[in-house]
Amino acid sequence: MRFSKSFVKTLRTAPKDETARGAQFLSRAGYVHKELAGIYDYLPLGLRVLENIKTIIREELDRIGCQEVLMSSLQNPEPWQKTDRWDIKKMDIWFKTALAAGGELGLAPTHEEPMTKMMQTYISSYKDLPVYVYQFQTKFRNELRAKSGIMRTREFLMKDLYSFATNEAEHEQFYHAAEQAYKRIYDRLGIGNDTFQTFASGGVFAKYSHEFQTLTDIGEDTIYYNADKSVVLNEEVLNDEVLAELGVKREELASAKAAEVGNIFTLKTKYSEPLGLVFNDQDGQRKTVLMGCYGIGVSRVMGVIAEKFCDDRGLVWPEQIAPYKYYLIGIGEEGSKQAEALYQGHEDQILYDDRNLRPGEKFADAELMGIPYRVVISDKTLADGKAEIVNRATGASELVDLQNIL
Amino acid sequence: MRFSKSFVKTLRTAPKDETARGAQFLSRAGYVHKELAGIYDYLPLGLRVLENIKTIIREELDRIGCQEVLMSSLQNPEPWQKTDRWDIKKMDIWFKTALAAGGELGLAPTHEEPMTKMMQTYISSYKDLPVYVYQFQTKFRNELRAKSGIMRTREFLMKDLYSFATNEAEHEQFYHAAEQAYKRIYDRLGIGNDTFQTFASGGVFAKYSHEFQTLTDIGEDTIYYNADKSVVLNEEVLNDEVLAELGVKREELASAKAAEVGNIFTLKTKYSEPLGLVFNDQDGQRKTVLMGCYGIGVSRVMGVIAEKFCDDRGLVWPEQIAPYKYYLIGIGEEGSKQAEALYQGHEDQILYDDRNLRPGEKFADAELMGIPYRVVISDKTLADGKAEIVNRATGASELVDLQNIL
Repeated sequence: MRFSKSFVKTLRTAPKDETARGAQFLSRAGYVHKELAGIYDYLPLGLRVLENIKTIIREELDRIGCQEVLMSSLQNPEPWQKTDRWDIKKMDIWFKTALAAGGELGLAPTHEEPMTKMMQTYISSYKDLPVYVYQFQTKFRNELRAKSGIMRTREFLMKDLYSFATNEAEHEQFYHAAEQAYKRIYDRLGIGNDTFQTFASGGVFAKYSHEFQTLTDIGEDTIYYNADKSVVLNEEVLNDEVLAELGVKREELASAKAAEVGNIFTLKTKYSEPLGLVFNDQDGQRKTVLMGCYGIGVSRVMGVIAEKFCDDRGLVWPEQIAPYKYYLIGIGEEGSKQAEALYQGHEDQILYDDRNLRPGEKFADAELMGIPYRVVISDKTLADGKAEIVNRATGASELVDLQNIL
Repeated sequence: MRFSKSFVKTLRTAPKDETARGAQFLSRAGYVHKELAGIYDYLPLGLRVLENIKTIIREELDRIGCQEVLMSSLQNPEPWQKTDRWDIKKMDIWFKTALAAGGELGLAPTHEEPMTKMMQTYISSYKDLPVYVYQFQTKFRNELRAKSGIMRTREFLMKDLYSFATNEAEHEQFYHAAEQAYKRIYDRLGIGNDTFQTFASGGVFAKYSHEFQTLTDIGEDTIYYNADKSVVLNEEVLNDEVLAELGVKREELASAKAAEVGNIFTLKTKYSEPLGLVFNDQDGQRKTVLMGCYGIGVSRVMGVIAEKFCDDRGLVWPEQIAPYKYYLIGIGEEGSKQAEALYQGHEDQILYDDRNLRPGEKFADAELMGIPYRVVISDKTLADGKAEIVNRATGASELVDLQNIL
C-alpha cells in the first residue's frame, strides 16, 4: 500500500470514551472507526488484520475436516422458542425487530438453534455423521455496557463451529482435535505462549467447558494456575470440589488477569433434543445427535492482541496477522528512488510511506501502526549499499544488503 | 472437495414456496438453505460462488484505486435524521431495534449516511481528494414481499462503493472509470453480452442514474433498446422528453425483461450537504464534497445468474464463478483409481464424486449442480488412455488424454 493514496490518516487523539490503551491506538493508527459504544467500522488496515486472523482459523479448521457455511443474521423465533432461549428473561442480550409482513425476528447472538435445525435436512443416518460445520458471521449482542474497544462489542465477528456425532467416543475424538486446532491457531496468531486452556463452568449438560485465556492486564477474567501451568482454572470453578478432582491445592495456585479468546463446549443433546435432530443408528435405533460448539471471537482476538502487545508508542502486531510486514521509508532523493524500486512488485507486503512528510513523522507513524519491520533507505545506508531494518517488537536494528532485504 | 465428506446432499424437492426455477435448483443442489421467505443460509458450495463473485468485483475495484472497509450493520439514528431518511414514512424498509442501554438503532439498508459521516474524520482539504471507498456488507431491508429466491431478499450481501470528489470533472472521471470497471466485472461474471448499461431515473439530484440490467425472463424490470443497443432505457424514464434528448423514437425500441445487477448514481451533495462533509479547496474556499455511489448486490447477482443459465436439468454456472471447475466421476475399479489419482493435488478445482452410488445418480447431480465440466474416467475411456469431458453448457463431449486433462 502506498500511504499517500490511503484515505485514512493517523490521528492525534482517540474518541474521548476510549479508555483502553490498545483501543486508543487502534483508532489513532487508523485500524477502526468508532460509530457508537460497542459498534465499530473496520478501516482498510483493520480489515486486513481481521482477514489474516480468519485465514489462520480457516486453514486450521479445514485441516481437521470442517466445512464452511454462512448463516443468516435474521432469526426465526421458532427454534429459539423450542430451546427456551427466545424470551428476553432467558437470554437478555437479544436485539429483536419486527417484520413489516408481520411477526417478530431476532438478530443472531449465536447460531446453535438455526444450525441444529438446518442439519435436520442433511442428517438422517449414522452414515451422515460425524460432520463439523463452521462460519465466520457477525453476532449481535445487546450488551448493557460495551467496553475495551473491540474486545467487547454489540456487533462483532465470530467464528462459530458446531460438531455432530453419533456417540460419546466420536464426539470426544473431535473435541480433542478441536483443542489441538485451537492451540495451533493461537500459536500462529502469536499468542500461543501466553494462552492457556482453562477449566470453566460447563453449564447443565457437561461438568466443564474449556476456555482459552490469554494473559493480559486488561483481561476481564482472573485465572488460577499451578507452577507448570498444567492446571489452569477460571475463577468461576475455583472451589474445593473441583480442586480435589484436579488434584491441586489452592495454595499451589497463582493468579493472573486474562482475556478469553475462545471456548469449546460439549453440548450433548442440549439443542438436538428439543429441536429433534435425530438419526438412525447402525443398530436400527433412532437416536439423538450429540453436539459440541467451538467459538473464537475474531474481532475480539484482534482487540486482545492489540492490548497485549502495545507499548507507549503504539501497536505491535505479531508478524502473521500484521496488515503489512514492512513499513518502508525512503530518505533523500536516492533513498526515495531506491525505496520506490523496492516497493514495486511487493505492494502486498509493504506499507510504503511515500507521503511528503519529515522522516520523524513517518517514524512515529510506523511505531503507532505497529508494522513488524521498519525499513529505511537513505544516503547514509546506501553508502554501503544497505538499508536499515528495525524490529518493532524488540527495537533491534540491522543493516542489510539492499538486494536481500525482503 | 470429496463429495462423500460433504454434509450437504442434493435434494429431490425445493421448499414449497420457492417458485423460480433457478431458486429451486439452488436449494435442491445444496447451494443455499432457506430460513424464512427472503432469508437464506449459504452452504459450502454457495459460499464459494459468493466468494468467487466477490473476488472478481474486488480485483476490478482495487484496479481503479478503490479502498476496502467494513462498516457496522447497527446504525446510529443521528446521521439518518439529518438526511431525513430515519423516518419509516421516508424510508419504509427499515428494520429497527432497541438498545438495552436506551435508544433506538437501525439495521443498515445501505450505508450513505455512516460513510459520509465517517469521511469527515479523514477529509478536510482538496489534498485528501478524490478517494473511493467500498465494502462487502450485509444489508437488511424489511421488504413486504420477498421473491425469486436470493434475487430479492430481506438480508443480502452487497458491494457498495462511494466516491468523494472536489469538483464535477473529478467526479465524472471516476464515474466513467466505475462504468468501465462494472463492464469488466459483468464480462468476467459471464453475463457481459446480455448486460446493458441502462438510463434510469436519477432522483432529485441528477437527471439520470445508470442501472446495469441483465436480460432474463424472470427479471422484474422491462428495458427498451434500439437496434444496436447503444441506447437502453428503463421503463421508468420512457417518456417523450427523454426520448427526444437521447435522439431515438419510441417505435425504434424493442423491449425485454431484465433484472438489475448493479447501479451507479451521481449524488452531488445530497448526503454531504446535510452531513457537513466539506473541504478547503485550493482557492481557500470551504466547499461541499461531491459524491457518487455504486452498488452491486452480490447474492442477487448469484441469483440472477442461477436463473438465467439454468435448464431443465439444473444450474449452469459460468466457469469463473462456479464453485469447482470439474465434476469428477470414476467408474469401475481402475476408473476410480485413476480418478482418485487425478483428484490428489487438485482439491480446489475438482468436486470429486466418490460416493458409493450408481453412475446415473452422479451424472444427474453433476447436471443439477451445474459444474462446468464433467470428467468421467472408466474402463472404456481408459482403453485409449483417455477421460471423457462433457461441457455442462453446450453438452459437447470430448475424449482427452488423461495426462492433459485439467
